[in-house]
Amino acid sequence: MSDFFKDIPEIRFAGPDSDSEFAYRHYDPDETVLGKRLEDQLRFAVAYWHSFAWEGGDPFGGATFERPWFGNGMAQAKLKADTAFEMFRILGQPYFCFHDADVRPEGESFAENTRALREITDHFQKKMEETGTRLLWGTANLFSHRRYMAGAATNPDPDVYAFAAATVKSCIDATHQLGGENYVLWGGREGYETLLNTDMGRERQQAGRFLCQAVEYARKIGFEGTILIEPKPQEPTKHQYDYDVATVYGFLKDFGLEREVKVNIEQGHAILAGHSFEHEIALARELGIFGSIDMNRNDYQSGWDTDQFPSSVPEVALAYYEILKAGGFTTGGTNFDAKLRRQSLDPEDLILAHAGAMDVCAAGFKAAARMWEDGRLEAAREARYAGWDTPQAKAMLDGDLEAIAARVEAEGIAPAPRSGRQERLENLVNRYL
Amino acid sequence: MSDFFKDIPEIRFAGPDSDSEFAYRHYDPDETVLGKRLEDQLRFAVAYWHSFAWEGGDPFGGATFERPWFGNGMAQAKLKADTAFEMFRILGQPYFCFHDADVRPEGESFAENTRALREITDHFQKKMEETGTRLLWGTANLFSHRRYMAGAATNPDPDVYAFAAATVKSCIDATHQLGGENYVLWGGREGYETLLNTDMGRERQQAGRFLCQAVEYARKIGFEGTILIEPKPQEPTKHQYDYDVATVYGFLKDFGLEREVKVNIEQGHAILAGHSFEHEIALARELGIFGSIDMNRNDYQSGWDTDQFPSSVPEVALAYYEILKAGGFTTGGTNFDAKLRRQSLDPEDLILAHAGAMDVCAAGFKAAARMWEDGRLEAAREARYAGWDTPQAKAMLDGDLEAIAARVEAEGIAPAPRSGRQERLENLVNRYL
Amino acid sequence: MSDFFKDIPEIRFAGPDSDSEFAYRHYDPDETVLGKRLEDQLRFAVAYWHSFAWEGGDPFGGATFERPWFGNGMAQAKLKADTAFEMFRILGQPYFCFHDADVRPEGESFAENTRALREITDHFQKKMEETGTRLLWGTANLFSHRRYMAGAATNPDPDVYAFAAATVKSCIDATHQLGGENYVLWGGREGYETLLNTDMGRERQQAGRFLCQAVEYARKIGFEGTILIEPKPQEPTKHQYDYDVATVYGFLKDFGLEREVKVNIEQGHAILAGHSFEHEIALARELGIFGSIDMNRNDYQSGWDTDQFPSSVPEVALAYYEILKAGGFTTGGTNFDAKLRRQSLDPEDLILAHAGAMDVCAAGFKAAARMWEDGRLEAAREARYAGWDTPQAKAMLDGDLEAIAARVEAEGIAPAPRSGRQERLENLVNRYL
Amino acid sequence: MSDFFKDIPEIRFAGPDSDSEFAYRHYDPDETVLGKRLEDQLRFAVAYWHSFAWEGGDPFGGATFERPWFGNGMAQAKLKADTAFEMFRILGQPYFCFHDADVRPEGESFAENTRALREITDHFQKKMEETGTRLLWGTANLFSHRRYMAGAATNPDPDVYAFAAATVKSCIDATHQLGGENYVLWGGREGYETLLNTDMGRERQQAGRFLCQAVEYARKIGFEGTILIEPKPQEPTKHQYDYDVATVYGFLKDFGLEREVKVNIEQGHAILAGHSFEHEIALARELGIFGSIDMNRNDYQSGWDTDQFPSSVPEVALAYYEILKAGGFTTGGTNFDAKLRRQSLDPEDLILAHAGAMDVCAAGFKAAARMWEDGRLEAAREARYAGWDTPQAKAMLDGDLEAIAARVEAEGIAPAPRSGRQERLENLVNRYL
Repeated sequence: MSDFFKDIPEIRFAGPDSDSEFAYRHYDPDETVLGKRLEDQLRFAVAYWHSFAWEGGDPFGGATFERPWFGNGMAQAKLKADTAFEMFRILGQPYFCFHDADVRPEGESFAENTRALREITDHFQKKMEETGTRLLWGTANLFSHRRYMAGAATNPDPDVYAFAAATVKSCIDATHQLGGENYVLWGGREGYETLLNTDMGRERQQAGRFLCQAVEYARKIGFEGTILIEPKPQEPTKHQYDYDVATVYGFLKDFGLEREVKVNIEQGHAILAGHSFEHEIALARELGIFGSIDMNRNDYQSGWDTDQFPSSVPEVALAYYEILKAGGFTTGGTNFDAKLRRQSLDPEDLILAHAGAMDVCAAGFKAAARMWEDGRLEAAREARYAGWDTPQAKAMLDGDLEAIAARVEAEGIAPAPRSGRQERLENLVNRYL
Repeated sequence: MSDFFKDIPEIRFAGPDSDSEFAYRHYDPDETVLGKRLEDQLRFAVAYWHSFAWEGGDPFGGATFERPWFGNGMAQAKLKADTAFEMFRILGQPYFCFHDADVRPEGESFAENTRALREITDHFQKKMEETGTRLLWGTANLFSHRRYMAGAATNPDPDVYAFAAATVKSCIDATHQLGGENYVLWGGREGYETLLNTDMGRERQQAGRFLCQAVEYARKIGFEGTILIEPKPQEPTKHQYDYDVATVYGFLKDFGLEREVKVNIEQGHAILAGHSFEHEIALARELGIFGSIDMNRNDYQSGWDTDQFPSSVPEVALAYYEILKAGGFTTGGTNFDAKLRRQSLDPEDLILAHAGAMDVCAAGFKAAARMWEDGRLEAAREARYAGWDTPQAKAMLDGDLEAIAARVEAEGIAPAPRSGRQERLENLVNRYL
Repeated sequence: MSDFFKDIPEIRFAGPDSDSEFAYRHYDPDETVLGKRLEDQLRFAVAYWHSFAWEGGDPFGGATFERPWFGNGMAQAKLKADTAFEMFRILGQPYFCFHDADVRPEGESFAENTRALREITDHFQKKMEETGTRLLWGTANLFSHRRYMAGAATNPDPDVYAFAAATVKSCIDATHQLGGENYVLWGGREGYETLLNTDMGRERQQAGRFLCQAVEYARKIGFEGTILIEPKPQEPTKHQYDYDVATVYGFLKDFGLEREVKVNIEQGHAILAGHSFEHEIALARELGIFGSIDMNRNDYQSGWDTDQFPSSVPEVALAYYEILKAGGFTTGGTNFDAKLRRQSLDPEDLILAHAGAMDVCAAGFKAAARMWEDGRLEAAREARYAGWDTPQAKAMLDGDLEAIAARVEAEGIAPAPRSGRQERLENLVNRYL
Repeated sequence: MSDFFKDIPEIRFAGPDSDSEFAYRHYDPDETVLGKRLEDQLRFAVAYWHSFAWEGGDPFGGATFERPWFGNGMAQAKLKADTAFEMFRILGQPYFCFHDADVRPEGESFAENTRALREITDHFQKKMEETGTRLLWGTANLFSHRRYMAGAATNPDPDVYAFAAATVKSCIDATHQLGGENYVLWGGREGYETLLNTDMGRERQQAGRFLCQAVEYARKIGFEGTILIEPKPQEPTKHQYDYDVATVYGFLKDFGLEREVKVNIEQGHAILAGHSFEHEIALARELGIFGSIDMNRNDYQSGWDTDQFPSSVPEVALAYYEILKAGGFTTGGTNFDAKLRRQSLDPEDLILAHAGAMDVCAAGFKAAARMWEDGRLEAAREARYAGWDTPQAKAMLDGDLEAIAARVEAEGIAPAPRSGRQERLENLVNRYL
């Protein structure tokens, strides 16, 4: 039993007027919102890596955190796990997520890694049964070890592909054993540093085949969760093949996977790709590939991945609104792929960063739900396109240019612009926040 | 006959040591490079809009240019055309490109626009026959008129779709009549200002259908040129649906057009989307949709479309290298979608901006050709991936995760990283510049 | 009397539960906040240019608005003025701001411009006396006319300097006559397009001398308002000399004006310069040059000036918090240098955009006031630096390196890092929103 | 004696036609350019940290390099030094630069660090005497250790200030002992992560006092080199106080140091601050604070510090041109604060990255020198401002607004815009490249 968080009370709902730092003011898991418990709507998950494996380094400085579980042995891995589940108890969130490399010691070989992962998976399974915490998704870390410096699936060396593929198998196995509801692939090294040494076409084929193999294996062993790709434009590589939702969609279409694989969208990655978070969610929904989210923000003035806990209710509300339009989460959820600032050294910081984020999300989700229930925004949107519901308009889409041109000329069609009413809609949105 | 450029001599090749501002130092159209005349390799085109229709305004200031042909009548349109062909004679470039709105007066109705376009098309045809200047591509301006403020194909009002579709028909007709080698669609307003009033799924369907109708019509009338989409991430709209090459590819796949439609890639648009120009070209090539380029740069420190004439030989060389890997241009070419800075008021500025750009491109192309002929860069690239040529590596791609994992474990595969040699390759590239 | 806004009711406070679009839900001018009426705290101003002179164009399209006062005559200018004051009556905001070019017809000469400005100034004076609306600031438009294309004060041609200086005199006169509380200089063309043709040192001297002359003249005629510079990094020019607050400060120091001139900070300009809005405000406060704000946001994904109405209460609250730390506004205020989206065609859009913005600001300001009154944030900040209050720490700052090094060595000083508590402070801030 | 580079030949000038990777094609140290040896013009320096202390990690992956000197002991530090001087011999560049933390083992206390630094300084001194390699600048690493996570001079804890100040004393001592020609301060942690916990005014005062103490100490011990501040906008901190040249200038003015301290400008930092490199150099020159440069580029599409070796001759030429306008380097030089890509594992990569960069700089410098000697660019610039040389223009600057306005009105001054000729000047520049 870890005593890292000793003296920190469980965080529970105490209402908006509570003055306690150690309470939820907006997140009541049992509150019914749009017909479901709030916990089941938001499906919060904690990211093991940032919270328990990250040491606080940045490109200009080393570790700032000093955690009793740091070190590369099985004992430390288990202490880390026990501390993690202790945090899950305190927060009361239903899910967590992990990479293999977060949870097991790093071995000298694939075999050693696999054995260690199995041991820690068994340990997790026991802890999960005891506590009721579930696995939102598992994933393989195919980017930190130097063997992956030039890519995993897209490496010029087929042995790296092999090592990576074998590792994905282990991670799918672990995820399946733990009842994971999704399996995620983030291709941090699947891209290039310079076009000069890169065969982009070949690498793209490798990536496609790799993904097919992963999907086939998962289905073969009976894994029924969702396979997710997490887009990111760059960093660590100069260019990453899974740049954004639209790019991933074209890739999936090319390999016939657009019904098998969905996306896990991160706010910070959307921003780095030049999009708003809600754009990426809406686009994925319209393309039929929306899966899950990483609800961590990027600093708007920083050009690298800052992975900060969400703090803006309006921003979060707009994202959840797009998710509600998609029908809400199915296997997906709200993962915090967020790390403490490296100056936030204390155990309390780790707890309260998550608690604050969960409260921001709960407040934002409830605002989105009010907006959705109220229906005025959707009514305005539908009214704007109402002209397309006429038979003539539909016929035009089925017709050809000549017929259209003839009609425009014959009828002297001269469209009169109508106001887009953006500011009025922004005012409307502010009513629900 | 226009005398706008009177006293400006024809720009002709005079060799690298020429001290004249009014000569090409690198562009000799008749020089043979990689088995073709340089003119046939580079296929330069002048953009009618920036050179003859743009008045020098920016968001904070009005017109700076004072051209004798400014005004909205047919007489002015013809004076403009005559001046343009006068410039083509001076520069000696083989191609030009235009939008309908650049070349005809703006009418009160579609019918009036069409009549005016036909009249000016006939005028062009005569000038082209006289001078030998050809049409690289035609296109429709579906973004400047206020009727398009909320989109053309993607407008919430079907009458705007109709007007736009009819206009595209007129423009394909004109392009076909003039023997245009390509037809381009740039969807400057096909996107949104705010998600709040936008039905992205519906708009995407409209855009897809619009493109299909355009392709079908072009083929029906016997147009054999290439249909091109020009990607751009944003500006004027907050988000543009044709964000970048990867996005366009997914879109084409969705509507079954990936063999019918290619892309016209602009350096400035690539930059604004977070990519290098050579990335976009290479990606299009690998996806089989490379068509043509707009060879105008964006200022690296400005977040809007600056459309400047190219001035960096190394940058241009890297772009042409990727085009050479694609086999060079077929119907595409090097269009300067570039505008004078608004302080460059003089007729000489217009001539010399193009002449300098053509020289930069010629020098860059010849450097790329040397690099390609020499073969060292490609040899290094192939060596890097040589491991993938073994039967085992190929078998692995055809196999499954279990077999791979078993092999990794059995053979104790532990890949040894090899240098990516980026700096050495950058040194190598500098040998050819 | 203009009837442009006929049938639009006056916008008045109706409380947070009001369902009306045409009411303030948060802005009650008479509410007392931190000891002052809310109207006197926020000091709202409407920008004449965007609301009445802008035609809805963008770099890719022309006018979208059709206003009865468009045109270049005195009659139109007066109709525009009457409509503007009609809007001020509807909104009830206390202030407005203008450039000379917004309010008078453009003449053929300086003399004609000056006469026209005087006539419209007299008209304004009468309207202001009738309605009680006051002038927050006046300014000269030294960027739209083509004469300024290469700068006003920094132009290579001394005649342009002369024209600009004379124009500033006219505008200071008008501002003084109307009791303006500030006079603003925004140097949209004071910068360069290319270093190649620019003498930066000379231009900087010209800019400094110009500012001195403006200050001297204003003081000479008894103008007691504040002279403000508005920083912006670029656009329209590639580089603008008044890049950001820190740059302006160095410039003012160089010309001995740091006690004479303050800054007018715009959120959008801060963003484009790579800063948060609150950073720029806080820095100006610490440097003693905080003056006023333009409370219009920039789209976070767009690299040009989008000048949107504010819509995020948390963002606005953080800005006002920094202003409260400065003691609140003195002569400055909250100006909306914001323009409608060009699709927002209707008179209602113009009214409701402002009304929504004022409500967002009121809600944000009240949140900031609660945060300030509560004092917990400031207490946490002070506690963090408490070590510096000891005599030893103060002595160290007055001492020298040798003494410090000797003490570090002798005492074995080994500082223990303490948590920065960023997430906890973000949680704290969210309590007030 | 290190054998890390065994079998790598000395890199020496072999002329532009040399086919060897291991030769300079443009850099002949003894070539006379503008009256000085090229070596004395360019004053190349190697950065110890990136070349010898950096392990190849990035935010998503650990060390990729495996160097025999890695480890934290004095033996390793000396092996590292011996290898470094071996590289200096191979490259033949005249200078190097270092931080204390690059060259000594990290100790448990300030005293231990100081002893270790002294020992390695003596070792360096001997190697420098043997080889003739000189020290361009020394500096203190006040950012990597966790004690500095919240700043060094600007830390909320005065003990950190003390530790940092003592460390700077040690580093000035070492730099002075080794005859360093400059001493640099880069404040990587002098800034903030969040305004919420920051007292910016107080931190700015601390930073100013710290710099004064450093200058006073350096002068007291007879150090005659230049003290340099290196601006950077952000990374690692969200906001860094030494944002750019203009910001540093205002800071120096505030503390009366603008004649004591100059700037070391890095291309990558300029880019991250939204400026071109040549802008920063030109501005520093005009403000009288130009000192030295870090000639390493940033990737234009990456929002973090990529520290790449320069590879573009035109870019380098424009930077050197601005330096030539400043009269060339005095104590400053061309430092490569550049790191290998983390995939560039081999000893050859380290040598050839530097050799290629030196060749790029030599070619660029010689192009700049041709441009400068030719004088056409400067003549065009002077002609553009010639109007300011008249007595009337000068009198106007000394006069006041009223006199100017009277003259504009009386003379009917109506300036006629003249072409800025940007494209023609860009063509001109391309003649020298």
